[in-house]
Amino acid sequence: MLAFVVRNHRLVATRKPLPKLRPGWALVRVRLAGICNTDVEILHGYHNFRGTPGHEFVGEVQGVAGVGVQDGKRWLGKRVVGEINISCRALSFRPICIYCKRGLTRHCARRKVLGIVKQDGAFAEYLTLPLENLHVVTSTVADEQAVFVEPLAAACEILDQVPLKKSREAAVLGDGKLAQLIARVLRSKLSRVVLYGKHPEKLALARAAEIETQKVQGDATDVIRIKKTFGLLVEATGSPTGLALAQQMTEPRGTLVLKSTFHGAAPIETWPTVVKELTIVGSRCGPFDKAVALLRSGTVDPRPLISRTFSLGEAPAAVRYAQQSGVMKVLLKAG
Amino acid sequence: MLAFVVRNHRLVATRKPLPKLRPGWALVRVRLAGICNTDVEILHGYHNFRGTPGHEFVGEVQGVAGVGVQDGKRWLGKRVVGEINISCRALSFRPICIYCKRGLTRHCARRKVLGIVKQDGAFAEYLTLPLENLHVVTSTVADEQAVFVEPLAAACEILDQVPLKKSREAAVLGDGKLAQLIARVLRSKLSRVVLYGKHPEKLALARAAEIETQKVQGDATDVIRIKKTFGLLVEATGSPTGLALAQQMTEPRGTLVLKSTFHGAAPIETWPTVVKELTIVGSRCGPFDKAVALLRSGTVDPRPLISRTFSLGEAPAAVRYAQQSGVMKVLLKAG
Repeated sequence: MLAFVVRNHRLVATRKPLPKLRPGWALVRVRLAGICNTDVEILHGYHNFRGTPGHEFVGEVQGVAGVGVQDGKRWLGKRVVGEINISCRALSFRPICIYCKRGLTRHCARRKVLGIVKQDGAFAEYLTLPLENLHVVTSTVADEQAVFVEPLAAACEILDQVPLKKSREAAVLGDGKLAQLIARVLRSKLSRVVLYGKHPEKLALARAAEIETQKVQGDATDVIRIKKTFGLLVEATGSPTGLALAQQMTEPRGTLVLKSTFHGAAPIETWPTVVKELTIVGSRCGPFDKAVALLRSGTVDPRPLISRTFSLGEAPAAVRYAQQSGVMKVLLKAG
Repeated sequence: MLAFVVRNHRLVATRKPLPKLRPGWALVRVRLAGICNTDVEILHGYHNFRGTPGHEFVGEVQGVAGVGVQDGKRWLGKRVVGEINISCRALSFRPICIYCKRGLTRHCARRKVLGIVKQDGAFAEYLTLPLENLHVVTSTVADEQAVFVEPLAAACEILDQVPLKKSREAAVLGDGKLAQLIARVLRSKLSRVVLYGKHPEKLALARAAEIETQKVQGDATDVIRIKKTFGLLVEATGSPTGLALAQQMTEPRGTLVLKSTFHGAAPIETWPTVVKELTIVGSRCGPFDKAVALLRSGTVDPRPLISRTFSLGEAPAAVRYAQQSGVMKVLLKAG
């Protein structure tokens, strides 16, 4: 099969045999994969990952191992999306770790992560995942929607972490792909969501989804200019400078959800968090079922966020394109 | 009366008339005042405060204004401690701010803060505070205990912010005055509290209060050496480097309480908070009633933390002494 691997900060095409299946795992033919900022970071050396990147996908189950005939039939041919964290239970580690024991498999101490940590990902014709990671997608949800389930689930994680009942409004800092999904998910629960970003064309995308927008400079002058505060604010700029503005824009006793996962140390004054008694909630991967439900009901339609679709063979060009200014979601289509 | 004021980063003795009383306020003769790290920061320029510092005290009500005869009699001669945040209601601002409206007077948007923001404090023979800020202390609690109510309340704030029922143990980073009080308050609720500090003599103080201790270097090597994690951890080192270790030592989905209020920006990597989905809770002033109750019941006795008591007239020397290595709480005794 065709698979791309990371070599010297570049994606390189390789031919390799189909991956072998562990018992309880499925072979999935990738139909469509999404390029995420994390993939770009991996090319820059994040996690020293040298396998096949890609963790956003929709595919079709082509084989299963170690399950009964009935279960096998139930899965074969199904269109699926897949959770990216592979727990120690699925990896046959015994005893399972304390986080898996508590049901926090996304925080498994020995986890592999699809396309990120020790597990080949979706920039290939096929991938494997444990059956426990897969979610079947109904035919009413298009591939171009289903490929957003992973980042949309990350946006939905906020709903599981923060009680929204106390909030009437929320702000999102950032206008990138994840920020846009977060704003849409929050808007499905709150009557007013304001997205602060620096790209006019991205702000226009948000407004089309009934999200208010505010133009910012994206530098230190924002802290001087912006006086408005919110009880709930999500920092999703992906930039080290976002946290200072986020602290300022969160009101006393308010909640600041931290989504940006840039690497490197940024100089940050933490006293505003102490003086205002903010609650900062780190937020990463989220519930796939909620994301699938939002797509199925039509509450969120992420398709306007697609900038361009490349064929899988053009993956290196697609990743370069994805890094251009103003580009939103870039997809890779197999076959 | 004798009062010390901040001039050119030093405490200077002045003679001034007794402060005038607003309606609903009390005149308090200071019996004993505590020196806090914030007082030292104020001398270094924090808040540009040029009045009388000092916000930890126990005193005696000598006069009240604008209340009925009965209320007046109820207060006169009473030994009291006082909350330091003066709300816009007590300052006669109308309408009151949205935080006061919600009962969050400690976060009042227009607050004055005793000895810190626009309100003369306790390094003087007398101070004034609104009656609503005062708490009467019963005679079974000594002055040397009552003077700790303000920082002890700040430690108790954690009990109001974090549900301890889910925790069996907790860690405290730092072995200074506030860290020691926090460890004692947590120990009153949890069977195991571990305090991480770098001063052997301070660790010994904690052990005497049935707190486990661990010696650290207090530099970047701690992050490499310390592998233990906790579901609940309090960062009270007062140092910019504490947060990196604190993030590492908080387990996935754990709670990190931030108490340090140093000023200046520290380079911090925030991705561990996102990847582990930590909840960081900023924590400042706390409930005086809980602190008074802990002293009254004997659950916490802070007196072993007193290093030395000076007379009020020796305040400049006392503040210099308080900054020496190994020194814990320094008190000022009036009269």
